[in-house]
Amino acid sequence: MRMSQLYAPTLKEDPADAEIASHRLLLRAGMIRKTASGVYTFLPLGYRVLSKIEGIVREEMDATGAQEIMMPALQPAELWHESGRWDDYGPELMRLVDRHDHGFCLGPTHEELITALVRNELRSYKQLPCSLYQIQVKFRDEIRPRFGLLRSREFIMKDAYSFHADQASLQKTYDDMSVAYGNICERCGLEYRPVEADSGQIGGKVTTEFMALAEAGEAELVYCTCGYAANTEAGACLARPTCYEVPALEKISTPGVHTIEELAQFLDIPESSTVKALSGRGDDGVLTVMFVPGDHELNEIKAGRAVPGFALLTDEEMEAAGLHKGSMGPVGLPEGTRVVADASLQAVPQWVVGANEDGFHYVGARLGEDFKVDTWDDLCIVKPGDSCPDCGLPLEGARGIEVSQVFQLGDKYSVAMGATFADENGEEKPFIMGCYGVGVSRTLAAVVEQHNDEHGIMWPLSVAPAHVCVIPLTVGDELVQPAAERVARELAALGLEVVIDDRDERAGVKFADADLIGWPLQIVVGKRGLAEGNVEVKLRRTGEKKSVPLATLAEMMTFARRNAKKSKAGVGTFDMLFA
Amino acid sequence: MRMSQLYAPTLKEDPADAEIASHRLLLRAGMIRKTASGVYTFLPLGYRVLSKIEGIVREEMDATGAQEIMMPALQPAELWHESGRWDDYGPELMRLVDRHDHGFCLGPTHEELITALVRNELRSYKQLPCSLYQIQVKFRDEIRPRFGLLRSREFIMKDAYSFHADQASLQKTYDDMSVAYGNICERCGLEYRPVEADSGQIGGKVTTEFMALAEAGEAELVYCTCGYAANTEAGACLARPTCYEVPALEKISTPGVHTIEELAQFLDIPESSTVKALSGRGDDGVLTVMFVPGDHELNEIKAGRAVPGFALLTDEEMEAAGLHKGSMGPVGLPEGTRVVADASLQAVPQWVVGANEDGFHYVGARLGEDFKVDTWDDLCIVKPGDSCPDCGLPLEGARGIEVSQVFQLGDKYSVAMGATFADENGEEKPFIMGCYGVGVSRTLAAVVEQHNDEHGIMWPLSVAPAHVCVIPLTVGDELVQPAAERVARELAALGLEVVIDDRDERAGVKFADADLIGWPLQIVVGKRGLAEGNVEVKLRRTGEKKSVPLATLAEMMTFARRNAKKSKAGVGTFDMLFA
Repeated sequence: MRMSQLYAPTLKEDPADAEIASHRLLLRAGMIRKTASGVYTFLPLGYRVLSKIEGIVREEMDATGAQEIMMPALQPAELWHESGRWDDYGPELMRLVDRHDHGFCLGPTHEELITALVRNELRSYKQLPCSLYQIQVKFRDEIRPRFGLLRSREFIMKDAYSFHADQASLQKTYDDMSVAYGNICERCGLEYRPVEADSGQIGGKVTTEFMALAEAGEAELVYCTCGYAANTEAGACLARPTCYEVPALEKISTPGVHTIEELAQFLDIPESSTVKALSGRGDDGVLTVMFVPGDHELNEIKAGRAVPGFALLTDEEMEAAGLHKGSMGPVGLPEGTRVVADASLQAVPQWVVGANEDGFHYVGARLGEDFKVDTWDDLCIVKPGDSCPDCGLPLEGARGIEVSQVFQLGDKYSVAMGATFADENGEEKPFIMGCYGVGVSRTLAAVVEQHNDEHGIMWPLSVAPAHVCVIPLTVGDELVQPAAERVARELAALGLEVVIDDRDERAGVKFADADLIGWPLQIVVGKRGLAEGNVEVKLRRTGEKKSVPLATLAEMMTFARRNAKKSKAGVGTFDMLFA
Repeated sequence: MRMSQLYAPTLKEDPADAEIASHRLLLRAGMIRKTASGVYTFLPLGYRVLSKIEGIVREEMDATGAQEIMMPALQPAELWHESGRWDDYGPELMRLVDRHDHGFCLGPTHEELITALVRNELRSYKQLPCSLYQIQVKFRDEIRPRFGLLRSREFIMKDAYSFHADQASLQKTYDDMSVAYGNICERCGLEYRPVEADSGQIGGKVTTEFMALAEAGEAELVYCTCGYAANTEAGACLARPTCYEVPALEKISTPGVHTIEELAQFLDIPESSTVKALSGRGDDGVLTVMFVPGDHELNEIKAGRAVPGFALLTDEEMEAAGLHKGSMGPVGLPEGTRVVADASLQAVPQWVVGANEDGFHYVGARLGEDFKVDTWDDLCIVKPGDSCPDCGLPLEGARGIEVSQVFQLGDKYSVAMGATFADENGEEKPFIMGCYGVGVSRTLAAVVEQHNDEHGIMWPLSVAPAHVCVIPLTVGDELVQPAAERVARELAALGLEVVIDDRDERAGVKFADADLIGWPLQIVVGKRGLAEGNVEVKLRRTGEKKSVPLATLAEMMTFARRNAKKSKAGVGTFDMLFA
């Protein structure tokens, strides 16, 4: 590649609406361009990185025995009606009608399509298990697209679907896919954690998200040195509430206190010594108050599991029900109120709670004596400092980008859509299914989030748009230019991907662009060095520079290259050159 | 690959709605499945072929210096308004609105997007020429999708766009692309012809279509041994009318004669000795009658060029204008009628034409004496037997599938969308553009149209889903099975793509599937042969079979393989084995 011909328009200034590093740097390095809100074009360098990630994904999928196919982006509405998701999916599903007024959507995922594809054609248990995958453009009409490739409306995904005769077979493929997903993260140079997650609209119960750790990530997660990790939306919560003990139940005047923060300040106790109350009703219409430790938030998904259909009351509904917003407590609730509390509060004998009277709270409300709890359950959003459900140690917190997810779907789609096979006894049974998604363009953004500095991107070798950039300091010079061309040719002959910056630009411009684009290695060819038979080798990741004799350059690179192949991720393996 | 695990559900019966070979065989061989009308899924074998064609296209594009990018499928309506095509494109453009009510279309082509992409970023003549391409899914809402992948609504295309400072630079890239397109056809094993074509909705004047010759093709073309070829819709027409000479102008009664066919029969002369008349009006409203040789059809595109806006009259309009349908002629037309005639009729001194009176015709109507012609022009759809415009010999006719097309767009989009660059004098000028499309999924179908027989597909080696199928006659047999596995391993080690049919099926089923799917070579491993140390090698293309000693199999295959690499198309190069 020649920089003089490469279409990679770099930008000196940060684009106005780019809030995070990957968005900003991919734009500045001339790798992507915005076509519409949440809709991007990959320019040549961005496309090269994307292709490399796709290549890694493809290799890992093939290694699991999955077979590559390609389904259409256009999906007939009928199939989504069959599964029930045409109505359930909401406005994120992009819908259109064709010229004959038939309804279609642009696939955000392909469970319906693949189930319709295999029904009637996968007929016997002998053909199972069967895994099919595709790498394809997907559509999701995000209400507020932002963060560049992280939350876009048109994006590249690898999605795989597996069909099984029984749960054991699904578990095996699920485990194989999980290994493959870990490999994909590692080979792309991502620091990641597989975490317990919620399956959302896709369905199924068992699911794991693969999170690339990054401050810019939309997801919060907790993890433990023992290996446990979870999305805070999904993880079990073992909160550690504290007890504010007083000799007896005491009703205290708390004028102007409406929040937990105000209450804790008023009493000069930690928020974890207070108890937060939330009111709502379930599908059965019973007035319900839920109690969680004051320093925790109610997890509405868990609340809905504890009391099916649980929905919070509005201020008006609370008033109508005789509840007092800002001073609710378990003592003196209206007759027939269902009381549900987070299991961690079982360990707190005296609660600091509202007195169900405006401007008053109780301290020393004794569990079992002053009030009763109907149901104990896991109700909270887990947070750092809570106990690890596996080993009990306090959890650490981090933010992450969800780059991929594996799901055990069970028979949700096969039952809804009548997709069955004949088992050993000739009996028709619904398929047990799994599905497995990798956000390919998301992974690209995640790599940049983890590998950048103030100068630009620092691509891992495995996904870099090229391995080496050769920079002649003075283009047209009768010594420098041919020497640089020769170096480029020699390194290319070793199997390295080489770009030469043959633009007639100042050295400063070339250095800045090379750092911004993030070639893992720069080889600077200048007059002074050449006079002594040397070139300067610079490692992008560390900024280290070294003068290397032309005569030994190829040998050193061969060594570094061999070493790079051994390392899965290929991150920084050119470091060898500086050992 | 193992047939026991491969998802390739073959069908014994021809699908009902599959009218042509490629549609029928791709379905039967388990390579594609219909998801909706004109919308298909590629199953594993179909996807392998598609990927190989994409690989060939990519190599040929890269060789021209074009750079691969990926633009989105979603295209904002505003860009299409800028070019004027939002209104011009018609119902084939699939349109939708997002949740914020912004208009989008699903790209059938990307001239607007790429022009918007480079404007403001390709700024200087120094950056030109620049060619960008993508391989991507495209959408076109065909009113009547049919013929499987040949006329579908979602399909795979490679589209490239080039930007130039001047026409000479465009011409060079156009020529390079034309060479690449020829290479692509050849390497896919297609018999093809580059033909003069019409640019249609894309715009521009100079354009060439690459036609894969096939009876199932939608296009008609003419060609000459001298190398000339054209789409009949676009080609220049040199008709060869004949003259029916009589001593003097004679009005004859022709009761019941309304068509050229009836007139020729009535007079017992060839249709080429009659003259056909068609009436219409141009944008200027002037009544116009066009005359073409009786054995030719008027080309409405040409008619519109001769008389801008020319549109045929309805029966009512003809009557109102004082014309006589079925007996129009140049003698005695209403005052002020514009007479336009095909240039070939200049060589016919006496015409057989209508008398502008129901039930009467003239013979011997003398050009220049009995009537005059205002304008001579090329008006006809060319057909076989017409003269070649390059050498004058009679043209041959054929049908073809348009697999790709190259266009010189000129400045149509750059002017409409304000895409300019600064030339050597710092002056802003619009880009001169070219665009170049390959129907990738269409090419796949075209290959099947050219390479099939009554048993199934006969893939050229270069795009076959695998090179060799090893068929053990008795699965589980303690001699046959391991011998087959060993053969498969040995051939794979040579770099061949090998599939083994390890299904527990009758030999007849395996042979039929192997012929249907179309592996170029089959190696049959059976007990009887093994007893003598032999396997049977069958060439799919010819059906030839040969008993080959196991000991020399690898050597023979290496020889054939080496030879296959030398041949661009790789069609039938396993023939070596049978030399």
